[in-house]
Amino acid sequence: MRLVTYRDGNRTHVGALREDGVVALDAVAPDMLTLIDGGAAALAQARTLAAEGQAIPLADVTLLAPIPRPRQNVICLGMNYVEHAYESERARGREPRLPQHPVFFTKAVTTIANPEEDVPLDPAVTAQLDYEVELAFIIGTGGKNIAKETAMDHIFGYTIVNDLSARDLQNQHLQFFKGKSLDKSCPIGPYILTADEVPDVAKLGLRLRVNGETRQESFAGDLIFDIPTIIATFSHGTTIEAGTIFSTGTPSGVGMGRTPPEYLNPGDLVEAEIDKLGVLRNRIVAA
Amino acid sequence: MRLVTYRDGNRTHVGALREDGVVALDAVAPDMLTLIDGGAAALAQARTLAAEGQAIPLADVTLLAPIPRPRQNVICLGMNYVEHAYESERARGREPRLPQHPVFFTKAVTTIANPEEDVPLDPAVTAQLDYEVELAFIIGTGGKNIAKETAMDHIFGYTIVNDLSARDLQNQHLQFFKGKSLDKSCPIGPYILTADEVPDVAKLGLRLRVNGETRQESFAGDLIFDIPTIIATFSHGTTIEAGTIFSTGTPSGVGMGRTPPEYLNPGDLVEAEIDKLGVLRNRIVAA
Repeated sequence: MRLVTYRDGNRTHVGALREDGVVALDAVAPDMLTLIDGGAAALAQARTLAAEGQAIPLADVTLLAPIPRPRQNVICLGMNYVEHAYESERARGREPRLPQHPVFFTKAVTTIANPEEDVPLDPAVTAQLDYEVELAFIIGTGGKNIAKETAMDHIFGYTIVNDLSARDLQNQHLQFFKGKSLDKSCPIGPYILTADEVPDVAKLGLRLRVNGETRQESFAGDLIFDIPTIIATFSHGTTIEAGTIFSTGTPSGVGMGRTPPEYLNPGDLVEAEIDKLGVLRNRIVAA
Repeated sequence: MRLVTYRDGNRTHVGALREDGVVALDAVAPDMLTLIDGGAAALAQARTLAAEGQAIPLADVTLLAPIPRPRQNVICLGMNYVEHAYESERARGREPRLPQHPVFFTKAVTTIANPEEDVPLDPAVTAQLDYEVELAFIIGTGGKNIAKETAMDHIFGYTIVNDLSARDLQNQHLQFFKGKSLDKSCPIGPYILTADEVPDVAKLGLRLRVNGETRQESFAGDLIFDIPTIIATFSHGTTIEAGTIFSTGTPSGVGMGRTPPEYLNPGDLVEAEIDKLGVLRNRIVAA
């Protein structure tokens, strides 16, 4: 099932995406986080409604970020694809090396941007805005000290994140948080595909285009630290909650890694695409 | 005014701390974040009630973290006191140096611990749990691109944070987030002192004791990046919201900086103290 958050007039709803449009799931939950909290029973109810309900044409609604306001910061992985780890270190003038443990950082909750929403670029804030297509997963069942063997059972579904990064700020401030937290720097969506429809996540292909030109192309199977390792490592001593968004890192091909580096400019159209998860499309505009 | 969140029986309230106990502020707001959102009007109402209301003896209630569940991660400063920046770099075998820009990272919302609450230490998770007394401030009025000159107007009040840090995880995972986010690793409180009662924050003395022995002692005036700089820098391109907690960094004297390093053990009593803000006391216990 493809789950969306959408606006119809002045109201926000959670819904199921079908070929013929969106079916409102108001009878199941008022928002995505409540639906996730509802567990298997809410999902079953949503499936029935999604199959039987009347669809509203997609043209009549506006898709929003699947989780417009997360309960905590988005948890991201840094340097989690081999070639990207190398290009990042080279771009910073360091010896290429791979992390020995997952690298976790966060993006502020205020970074969330909708599919198709314009992302403001203020030249007084950053001269080096960069794109990063990433496979994201959403926790369905929380936990602590989760074993790798059962980690996948904790996933509610998958979506796309474009982890927009201000490279100058990311470097200046040493820790990544500030450079990763400009307003609207976390476009996410367009929908969450429930985990039951992704039997082999490693096979998903990722790609990112800037103005139609492919810049990143890889497979989720190329992750250095796979999803069970991410969940088991992070939950060791730290409780993970339902609704938490994890973004698994980006493959090579970012603007910082090009010779010379090529950053985003107002007018650029960025399309992050993942097999089965659709296309997350955002235009960069002058702030 | 000293504002607290407390539990009385099964109910949680926001209240004002007086010499004779706690005055319930239920008539003003159901919780601290709502009180902060209420702005000057809610604060004025709280002051009247705090002066005229009937106090409940402190012994009859349990003080909780002033904000038990923040709306986003706690934003922390790293290496923001000269001597601590030096001891941190030396402990990691690097040349002592000072950051040229504020270093921002976050602690998960699940790290919040109450005053007097026990903090679990699981030896399977970390062998290097360390203390850090820090002056924290809470945003009252949000904003973006806030000027240094008006930054202090955005502060609701001040409190104490003990930024408990798993040094082994902090180093292994490269970015600080994981090592700073073990459950209960952010004791905070015991109360928020409203900003009007802190005319000169730079004069506040900080100290931390382990089992009665003073380990850290400094003044907020020793911050490398002062509070107006923190607010102006972070809000450049990033919206800051009401209720957000900023913790301004720790002075020298942490366990990692001692020769040999001395980390926390089950049974240790950690007391973080700041002038006017009271004592934040937590015991480390075996998980």
